[in-house]
Amino acid sequence: MPDIVNLAQKFALIRDFWSPKIAGQLNGQYVELARLKGEFVWHRHDDEDELFLVVKGILTIQLRDRVVTLHEGELFIVRAGIEHRPVAAEEVHVMLLEPIATLNTGNVMNEHTLRDLDWV
Amino acid sequence: MPDIVNLAQKFALIRDFWSPKIAGQLNGQYVELARLKGEFVWHRHDDEDELFLVVKGILTIQLRDRVVTLHEGELFIVRAGIEHRPVAAEEVHVMLLEPIATLNTGNVMNEHTLRDLDWV
Repeated sequence: MPDIVNLAQKFALIRDFWSPKIAGQLNGQYVELARLKGEFVWHRHDDEDELFLVVKGILTIQLRDRVVTLHEGELFIVRAGIEHRPVAAEEVHVMLLEPIATLNTGNVMNEHTLRDLDWV
Repeated sequence: MPDIVNLAQKFALIRDFWSPKIAGQLNGQYVELARLKGEFVWHRHDDEDELFLVVKGILTIQLRDRVVTLHEGELFIVRAGIEHRPVAAEEVHVMLLEPIATLNTGNVMNEHTLRDLDWV
């Protein structure tokens, strides 16, 4: 279990894009860190809200009815049941918060789907 | 309900120290923002873990057996039941994450105790 978590140091340890790593756990939620680049898959989480906090870069979150653009130091919560697709034209470092049981690709199973997340 | 939350813009709206404001809500948790300066009260949360993410400044969290020093971009989770006292020698901006039911002073009731948090 980690203790003090330095975000920049943790991001430096992450090799893959679209592969969230666990940086903390509290009250049934995971704090996850991910490097993003390119386009993810459209998906939704039926029962879980998901928080995105941009630590570096510019993250676009496509929703079915609009597009949300997040800069460094900005956060956005995707509500349960809302379809979304994260897109990162350039590399983005993001902190995520979601329930432990959440699957990264939500209702979609594809090559991005991770069943067990590793700690970083 | 807020949408995109720009942390710097939100902190600029907060006037008081030691008075967390709600910036988001997900999965039964509040995302809270607080300006800290000086010494808080020793307290514990019997059933809730609490996350501290330092956005600006240097935050000291005194525990009964050690002291944790957090710089900008570092987070720490105080486990349920663990007595702690945040101390900010200079002003600190911190993002907190804790269950909605959490009382800011935990098991202690004093002049810092807030029963209802406002949104920022």
